[in-house]
Amino acid sequence: MADIPNILSERYASEHLKSIWSTRGKIILEREFWIAVMKAQRALGLTIPNEAINAYELVKEQIDINLIRNREETTKHDVKARIEVFNELAGYEHIHKGLTSRDLTENIEQLQILRSLKIIRQKAVSALILLAQRADEFRNLVITGRTHNVPAQPTTLGKRVAMFGEELLFGLQCLDNIIEHYPIRGLKGAVGTQIDLLTLFDGDSTKVSTLEEKILGYLGSKRLMPITGQVYPRSIDFAVLSNLFLLSSAPSNMAKSIRLMAGHELISEGFDDNQVGSSAMPHKMNCRSCERINGFNVILKGHLTMVAGLAGDQWNEGDVSCSVVRRVVMPDSFFTIDGLFETFLHVIQQMEIFPNNIEKENNQYLPYLATTTIMMEAIKNGAGRESAHEAIKEKSIAVAKDIREGKIKENDLVDRLANDPRLGLKQSQINEILTQNEKLMGSAGSQVNTFINESIVWKKRFPKAADYKPIKIL
Amino acid sequence: MADIPNILSERYASEHLKSIWSTRGKIILEREFWIAVMKAQRALGLTIPNEAINAYELVKEQIDINLIRNREETTKHDVKARIEVFNELAGYEHIHKGLTSRDLTENIEQLQILRSLKIIRQKAVSALILLAQRADEFRNLVITGRTHNVPAQPTTLGKRVAMFGEELLFGLQCLDNIIEHYPIRGLKGAVGTQIDLLTLFDGDSTKVSTLEEKILGYLGSKRLMPITGQVYPRSIDFAVLSNLFLLSSAPSNMAKSIRLMAGHELISEGFDDNQVGSSAMPHKMNCRSCERINGFNVILKGHLTMVAGLAGDQWNEGDVSCSVVRRVVMPDSFFTIDGLFETFLHVIQQMEIFPNNIEKENNQYLPYLATTTIMMEAIKNGAGRESAHEAIKEKSIAVAKDIREGKIKENDLVDRLANDPRLGLKQSQINEILTQNEKLMGSAGSQVNTFINESIVWKKRFPKAADYKPIKIL
Amino acid sequence: MADIPNILSERYASEHLKSIWSTRGKIILEREFWIAVMKAQRALGLTIPNEAINAYELVKEQIDINLIRNREETTKHDVKARIEVFNELAGYEHIHKGLTSRDLTENIEQLQILRSLKIIRQKAVSALILLAQRADEFRNLVITGRTHNVPAQPTTLGKRVAMFGEELLFGLQCLDNIIEHYPIRGLKGAVGTQIDLLTLFDGDSTKVSTLEEKILGYLGSKRLMPITGQVYPRSIDFAVLSNLFLLSSAPSNMAKSIRLMAGHELISEGFDDNQVGSSAMPHKMNCRSCERINGFNVILKGHLTMVAGLAGDQWNEGDVSCSVVRRVVMPDSFFTIDGLFETFLHVIQQMEIFPNNIEKENNQYLPYLATTTIMMEAIKNGAGRESAHEAIKEKSIAVAKDIREGKIKENDLVDRLANDPRLGLKQSQINEILTQNEKLMGSAGSQVNTFINESIVWKKRFPKAADYKPIKIL
Amino acid sequence: MADIPNILSERYASEHLKSIWSTRGKIILEREFWIAVMKAQRALGLTIPNEAINAYELVKEQIDINLIRNREETTKHDVKARIEVFNELAGYEHIHKGLTSRDLTENIEQLQILRSLKIIRQKAVSALILLAQRADEFRNLVITGRTHNVPAQPTTLGKRVAMFGEELLFGLQCLDNIIEHYPIRGLKGAVGTQIDLLTLFDGDSTKVSTLEEKILGYLGSKRLMPITGQVYPRSIDFAVLSNLFLLSSAPSNMAKSIRLMAGHELISEGFDDNQVGSSAMPHKMNCRSCERINGFNVILKGHLTMVAGLAGDQWNEGDVSCSVVRRVVMPDSFFTIDGLFETFLHVIQQMEIFPNNIEKENNQYLPYLATTTIMMEAIKNGAGRESAHEAIKEKSIAVAKDIREGKIKENDLVDRLANDPRLGLKQSQINEILTQNEKLMGSAGSQVNTFINESIVWKKRFPKAADYKPIKIL
Repeated sequence: MADIPNILSERYASEHLKSIWSTRGKIILEREFWIAVMKAQRALGLTIPNEAINAYELVKEQIDINLIRNREETTKHDVKARIEVFNELAGYEHIHKGLTSRDLTENIEQLQILRSLKIIRQKAVSALILLAQRADEFRNLVITGRTHNVPAQPTTLGKRVAMFGEELLFGLQCLDNIIEHYPIRGLKGAVGTQIDLLTLFDGDSTKVSTLEEKILGYLGSKRLMPITGQVYPRSIDFAVLSNLFLLSSAPSNMAKSIRLMAGHELISEGFDDNQVGSSAMPHKMNCRSCERINGFNVILKGHLTMVAGLAGDQWNEGDVSCSVVRRVVMPDSFFTIDGLFETFLHVIQQMEIFPNNIEKENNQYLPYLATTTIMMEAIKNGAGRESAHEAIKEKSIAVAKDIREGKIKENDLVDRLANDPRLGLKQSQINEILTQNEKLMGSAGSQVNTFINESIVWKKRFPKAADYKPIKIL
Repeated sequence: MADIPNILSERYASEHLKSIWSTRGKIILEREFWIAVMKAQRALGLTIPNEAINAYELVKEQIDINLIRNREETTKHDVKARIEVFNELAGYEHIHKGLTSRDLTENIEQLQILRSLKIIRQKAVSALILLAQRADEFRNLVITGRTHNVPAQPTTLGKRVAMFGEELLFGLQCLDNIIEHYPIRGLKGAVGTQIDLLTLFDGDSTKVSTLEEKILGYLGSKRLMPITGQVYPRSIDFAVLSNLFLLSSAPSNMAKSIRLMAGHELISEGFDDNQVGSSAMPHKMNCRSCERINGFNVILKGHLTMVAGLAGDQWNEGDVSCSVVRRVVMPDSFFTIDGLFETFLHVIQQMEIFPNNIEKENNQYLPYLATTTIMMEAIKNGAGRESAHEAIKEKSIAVAKDIREGKIKENDLVDRLANDPRLGLKQSQINEILTQNEKLMGSAGSQVNTFINESIVWKKRFPKAADYKPIKIL
Repeated sequence: MADIPNILSERYASEHLKSIWSTRGKIILEREFWIAVMKAQRALGLTIPNEAINAYELVKEQIDINLIRNREETTKHDVKARIEVFNELAGYEHIHKGLTSRDLTENIEQLQILRSLKIIRQKAVSALILLAQRADEFRNLVITGRTHNVPAQPTTLGKRVAMFGEELLFGLQCLDNIIEHYPIRGLKGAVGTQIDLLTLFDGDSTKVSTLEEKILGYLGSKRLMPITGQVYPRSIDFAVLSNLFLLSSAPSNMAKSIRLMAGHELISEGFDDNQVGSSAMPHKMNCRSCERINGFNVILKGHLTMVAGLAGDQWNEGDVSCSVVRRVVMPDSFFTIDGLFETFLHVIQQMEIFPNNIEKENNQYLPYLATTTIMMEAIKNGAGRESAHEAIKEKSIAVAKDIREGKIKENDLVDRLANDPRLGLKQSQINEILTQNEKLMGSAGSQVNTFINESIVWKKRFPKAADYKPIKIL
Repeated sequence: MADIPNILSERYASEHLKSIWSTRGKIILEREFWIAVMKAQRALGLTIPNEAINAYELVKEQIDINLIRNREETTKHDVKARIEVFNELAGYEHIHKGLTSRDLTENIEQLQILRSLKIIRQKAVSALILLAQRADEFRNLVITGRTHNVPAQPTTLGKRVAMFGEELLFGLQCLDNIIEHYPIRGLKGAVGTQIDLLTLFDGDSTKVSTLEEKILGYLGSKRLMPITGQVYPRSIDFAVLSNLFLLSSAPSNMAKSIRLMAGHELISEGFDDNQVGSSAMPHKMNCRSCERINGFNVILKGHLTMVAGLAGDQWNEGDVSCSVVRRVVMPDSFFTIDGLFETFLHVIQQMEIFPNNIEKENNQYLPYLATTTIMMEAIKNGAGRESAHEAIKEKSIAVAKDIREGKIKENDLVDRLANDPRLGLKQSQINEILTQNEKLMGSAGSQVNTFINESIVWKKRFPKAADYKPIKIL
């Protein structure tokens, strides 16, 4: 562990994702790329001896980071340093032929990005599947729906979960679109004209195209940017990061609502067994993980600002004012979204419901929330619309006032309405309305079904996602 | 004109876009929506007399904004104010049945957004077509390609234009994806359970679904959000705005490069006839429009921040902390991107090239830029590789030094190399290399062709885009 | 009212602030500035006839905005258009001598900024004074303090208000610092060398300095930027806007906590008399104003991003890519912060407390929150520390469990502890602890005093602030 | 070196700054803080044996990070883990008495922030001093001033440097203000009421105040926040970071202008001796460091967005959604600004001027830029104003046209004007105007003097700043 670690990777990200972005991991990706290029060049007729390729293969995992770093301090050119060191290890000078630095670095970074995107997509699918399970579990658990943070109408907890799930699905579809159409820069040379590769192949443009196509396949993308300058447009990075942020929105919304519900003791984000909370304050079950999810969402906003500061600010065939920014923002944004999903998966799995408190809240507010239905029942029963409306309004206001002034402790609107001759309803009739959960729920149940069906499509497409076990979180 | 106008709409946006977002335009959209809902409800069996619908139709364009505003000041509820005024005008109370405010406002806003997106898409296609024309025109005009803002290798102006065109194409594809999959909230009620509509249709959920589908068609979208709370997730707004910003990146990059080229007098953004620049400084052709494009890009970053401040910060079934933000950011971001494209279309059409200055720059740098090719020719001619390399390096450094120290005024590297026996090349041979534009251009020409072909696909899909005439700009 | 109004000014800002930024208001500021410059130039010896100055004075309020706009469409230069129109009205050509456009526009904009800053400062002082009154009023009203949104320890409402007040004070001090040291660009010419003014005064640099100093006084600032290019550094705009955002933080925090408290029915943001809320749902007192305050805070973040996109991106002596951005962001950010403070002043004045609900919440949680004190009392009374601790922990966990499982409805920890022999405390002794508000409050009361004293200093400095009546809000 | 290092600290930051934020460094700061609190508590009468304090002192540098990390994985509470480990090392349990976690962490973080701020302030002073030296050196070197990136009027390189210096000074003053008024949270307890400390001192509030004051002194600040919740307002963090960004603006502006000048070969950012650039392209002196400075500026914008996402979004007495954000943004923003200044100091010291190219550019544009002066001279000489103006305009346009069309290579406006009878000036007279540098420079020289004088004030206040040697940069 470094003394100044990368906080995001060290505390929150998964090993899988870290292995893509580690210093060592990246150098291996580069060396494998050089070897792939050499093989393709040899196949296209360049004189590169097989022994040379073998020699590179043999030493490709011999990585001395300090040595490379020291070399860079002399050359002030990081790629040159890495070329020299690899050549010296292999005892040949056949890598990087007809390439410029960016033919290496741009493609490797895009490889890292594409692989990371695919990992995140799968974790989002895992979250989708878990949300569907939870939505199913709480499909009919009526809760007090809130707008403006104030009770508004009944809904169900399952529907609330499905609501966040539906938003996640939207983000997932957007992310999927960018993955499936992610364009790779390819081999374009110093200003995008491929002049050195053309020279290398004596002006044979077909060979250059074939080489580029081979490399595209190697990188695992379906789409080549046919025209670039020295570097690919940084708006592609922006497209990636804006989709990461988009994807973080549903988890962040759900985390925020859990924090609000926890404030009413309706729910907790769950605890591990050995984490008992304060002994003196056993009620104090802090939503640390949910708060962290909201924090990750904020961090991604900052990353988005960074990358938005690059798109649209490129000079001519390419300047390098983006370099230091991308060194920071590309790995860090993936560590962040990875940590967010690891945490989110925990929360979905572990969240704990307190049905008695939920019921207590419902009892407090349902009489208000159901007044429309009560009025309609009264009218069916023969009451006049206007006098029924007047009766309800009058009693409702009185109850609210009495509660606030401490005259009564519980909402007794039902009793008061039952005693009002203008409505002509018995207490039992009113109570029946309040307990007809199915009516109060409206479309909640069928909406949950819709969401479950949508999740199944993704589960089929990514079968491993259903089995993913999140990492242990701090 | 208001005394405190909306700067973005007043100075930069087109009438077409403004008509969607004007106070009056929005009220008409709302009233038409209410009428459409009434018609659909009547078709599904609700008792709404035809005369009532006709009465609403008759008065729908009678709009007194001050009256509505005054009403809002009393009710402190903007939708209620607009309902009351419309009812009073028609003399009926049949609109808004089974709806909550958000069943109106969310859908109308999404209608405004979707229509605006389609306008912007078409303008982006117009820009794409014009860029393809310009790329074609300058396909073979060799210019000095720059990286780090310093001459690097030759390219062509046509290829540089195509490079920006390719980035625009990427943004356009992303925008197109969001348009084609833009999800509409539909009619969901106060917390998303559709309870009031279900009550209205006596619990008949099929009728509620049919009504919602009809409204979706009316709004011109293909996709319904099946599950929402009171409001749709604001991450959908984020997805829209991030795509607007993405789309602004290519014009902004191109504008920046034009500003740089103008600093070298290689190009100007063009001028109208009556705009002669300063009489005393006829050289001073400022890139006002390009600077403005870069400014629009910055404004969109701010809009993006605003909407990123909403996504992931929603409470329960919906809070309204987003209200004031969306009132500002949704219209303003569309005015901004609209103004950007109007300006960009002008620039592409009017930009003016100064070929003599371009050639002068090439002459200054080409000897450096072509040294690799010169060396290879020398080797073919019998020179030793090492001594040829040594000769070129030595002379190049000497020339650069002499220029900087003022000993010579023009790059005479060719002369010096011609006199160096280590190379064994005549001046005429070297000059020939420098004038073999086709070789120096590399793949530039074929890349331009690729771009033109891509643009044709979009031109066919949006045939009107080719004829669009941008508005007069300030 | 315009058909596409500036939403922020039209709906939320005060007349005072709007008058500074209106089209008409700005033109008057410019014309007065030109006249001030003429007078100063005449005093320094330039031949400018008094009649000319008088002629300008006479027509300075004759403003035909459409005429100016049409002129700009021809000249494509907004300042030139305004010079020509003013000259034609007066029948002279004496304004703008030795000046460039930026000598006019930069100073006028800084004048608008400085005046707006002072208005906002005074409103912040008004808010500070009102907060101090409220803190005083609720100094001893014990509430359940929350961290992680979960009950943590008792505090008082007065202290909570003072906490937000203290943050406001910090923002106010920072704003005050920028106002008192706000640097003005002055008269610097086209690239900052004052060459035209020097030529005008035959190279007499003392006269140029005197002229600049006079203008500085006219603009109401104490500090001149001695060195600029064509424009002043946009980091000064950033400094202004970052302080506006900073100032919005305390109101935004307080608004958010009111929204949370309203969700527990402890407080409401208050209502006007004619705004009765929903008749069927009299409990539904939405925090619309508080949500709006949070929305304004988000908008300011967007404005901050815009202006951060200008600072550090200036080219040479000045480019104009900032122009369109500043046209939008400078007025809009002031409208936003102005609307925020108008809304905030309302909320502070009108917020309504529901002491019975507050007490109910305290009763639910105080037993937990006071366990430390209970334990200490038990020990004083002779109980063993370890067994007392064990007893409290055991009972606390049992109560929390029983409540969540619905076995009990109210927290009966006190009863259980009173019956536990390990503690040896009577119920009356424990109840006494729970009612010793002064102990439970800790330093809350004295902190409120501190805050009140701090507010008095500002009240004295800005005596009118105490009497400010906020505008009627929507 | 970690395999996933913190890029910003590893590649760019200085050892001094890193030592403040390293894992180890922070743990030492915490332990020293605990010891300081114990000593103060003992002095105020608490029973803490001297041996205990000594025992803690002895082991305070025994830091096993993995051990602490493992402990945190069990407790899920980082502070608790660090308390336990320190207690076990010392064999006592006397630290952290009457404190909550935040009494430790908030103060330590503020200590880190304050120390870092002071380091940055001193480096900014170093930059100021170096800029003054450079401004002095190039005080009279006339260059072609540019607005809109197009030649506008002459200025001097010294003045251009001073212009950036003046902006830096503004940022420095703002930073200095925040340092001198930086408020510390102090010891406030779980919700800000100090209840545990009051209990510890038997309700003696004077002792609590004394303890807090002592700790304030220990932390090196002059100002205590008298009222907070559990945490201090995050708007204080925003104030810090907005000032860091503000401070980065001048270096970023200067870096951008150097990149532009380098594109015209007027200047380079300088090179180390062993960094010869490409041997084949000796002219290719890339502005890598300047590009990096611009990149750092973009990163800081992202950090600003992160911290702006915290200010105004705090719940009640404190939530912890800010935790993960601040773990990232606080150290990283300081590493960024530190790296920026290290790089900037290099650039100022090493930048290299190419006077011959500067002169060449002047020759190309000066005739245009001086036309106003030429006209005035002609009028003095007896020419009519209108015909002189007409002559200049006519010839200027003709020259510009001929250059663009390639008819002439160099600006021969002087020759053409000399031959025009309407002006009546000899070539020698015109040439004299063009070489009267002092006139063309305007106030440039005296402005440089002003800047130098301002810098001296800061040099006196921070005498060590003048001798600071920047670290070796990559």
